[in-house]
Amino acid sequence: MSERDTVAVVGLGLIGGSIARDLAARGVRVAGFDADTAALDAAYADGIIADRLERSLAGLAGATTVILAVPVSATPEVLQAAAKHLGNATLVTDVGSTKRSALAAAISLGLGRSFVGSHPMAGDHRSGWSASRTGLFSGAPTYLCATPSTRAEALVRARELWMSLGARPVVIDADAHDERVAFTSHMPHALSAALALALSRAKIGGDGVGPGGRDMLRIAGSSPDMWTAILADNADEILSAVAALRVELERFEQALSQHDARSLHGLFSEAQAWTLKAHVDIRT
Amino acid sequence: MSERDTVAVVGLGLIGGSIARDLAARGVRVAGFDADTAALDAAYADGIIADRLERSLAGLAGATTVILAVPVSATPEVLQAAAKHLGNATLVTDVGSTKRSALAAAISLGLGRSFVGSHPMAGDHRSGWSASRTGLFSGAPTYLCATPSTRAEALVRARELWMSLGARPVVIDADAHDERVAFTSHMPHALSAALALALSRAKIGGDGVGPGGRDMLRIAGSSPDMWTAILADNADEILSAVAALRVELERFEQALSQHDARSLHGLFSEAQAWTLKAHVDIRT
Repeated sequence: MSERDTVAVVGLGLIGGSIARDLAARGVRVAGFDADTAALDAAYADGIIADRLERSLAGLAGATTVILAVPVSATPEVLQAAAKHLGNATLVTDVGSTKRSALAAAISLGLGRSFVGSHPMAGDHRSGWSASRTGLFSGAPTYLCATPSTRAEALVRARELWMSLGARPVVIDADAHDERVAFTSHMPHALSAALALALSRAKIGGDGVGPGGRDMLRIAGSSPDMWTAILADNADEILSAVAALRVELERFEQALSQHDARSLHGLFSEAQAWTLKAHVDIRT
Repeated sequence: MSERDTVAVVGLGLIGGSIARDLAARGVRVAGFDADTAALDAAYADGIIADRLERSLAGLAGATTVILAVPVSATPEVLQAAAKHLGNATLVTDVGSTKRSALAAAISLGLGRSFVGSHPMAGDHRSGWSASRTGLFSGAPTYLCATPSTRAEALVRARELWMSLGARPVVIDADAHDERVAFTSHMPHALSAALALALSRAKIGGDGVGPGGRDMLRIAGSSPDMWTAILADNADEILSAVAALRVELERFEQALSQHDARSLHGLFSEAQAWTLKAHVDIRT
């Protein structure tokens, strides 16, 4: 992004708000919208948003880059409302955790040429403008998914956008993306929530949970709205990932029920080996 | 602990080494032993250990407090080797993640009066002297389990020991301890390892794993030796905990396969509610 660009960010939550903050810090003029008037006003009062867009989104007509940072379930609807105002946009992108449905919505609205789906692997269990902050995307792998008709200029601009935010763009096919993040993000979120539910049902409180358990439970605190939408949108891939997890869990159960220390050691060793190999990303 | 006490630490890994560092920093004279001569020499060269004990552990006779910080599977054997030298010890304790078997070993060796089982909820996926550090136990919940014949003086001294390290002692029955940590620590470790195995089998590397996945995978990097011993020693309780987890996981699977967003939302909301309620301990 250069200072000549006008970027519009629709949705000023953790992700959209953090994008706006980083862009504003770099001197980019940012127009913004949020359905929560208090969040929109706060972003304006903080000097992050130079222009507040109206609910009609007509103001998007002045933007060269448009970023939709709304929940996955709202993206098609917001894209539809925005579509007729996107004539000047070189790049239209979203930030959702699923990409197949976002691309399908863009294509069906005739936005395939300017659309690139984005998915930054950043954020935490918090949400909303109050959780947004500068530097959120520093070093974050960020998936970019093009439609069959995405223009090269749009993809170049998407890469530049994320690199300017400190992220590491990775271009990937939308199907491959949705399959992959089902394993690396969506199923683990369900797992963390399932762990919290198991503790809750066993009448165990948070007191006495150690650092390992704490890590496993952190993302169970994530927004139910956001994660319901993501799981519903990627249900089949997530079911496959849960099935794969169950296979491994059953190996532990079998070894435990047979008091088979050798098998347990083999499982832990294999898991540790994968984790050590993956250590550039995991051990931070 | 006062400066008049002599404390012996057998096993100078992450936990034992960190205890020795904190005690030495407070002016307590620490005698130490580790089967790894390099670790023992390093601890001595660093000035943390004032006396290196021999493999016979005869030097324990001079200690008023004896701390065994060896793997769970080695505790009975080391206790047995130490037993005949423990006549001067007011407190004998261990630091293992299971407590029933440690207490049973102490009782069978006639050490019930001076023994208190300890389990600090501290540490991470690393191990060994090189991973040890001061301040590891700051704020850490630390379970203390007395035998039926533990003298009050031993329990008081155990509390004082852990409080002097900055920990928060919690006295609990050994059975209740083993059941509880199966849910809060042991099963979650198996879960993290199972997740790593599922990713490994799906040919997914660490690249592109986001912050949530990273949290869920960190403890999969833990020592296979250590965790095999813990799981083998608490197999039945862990099997119950895994079964409880599977019940919750199946609720997610059912909701996903029926594309039932309402149920998914209910599950995530319940999980978040537990996590928020537990937030004093979880959200750090």
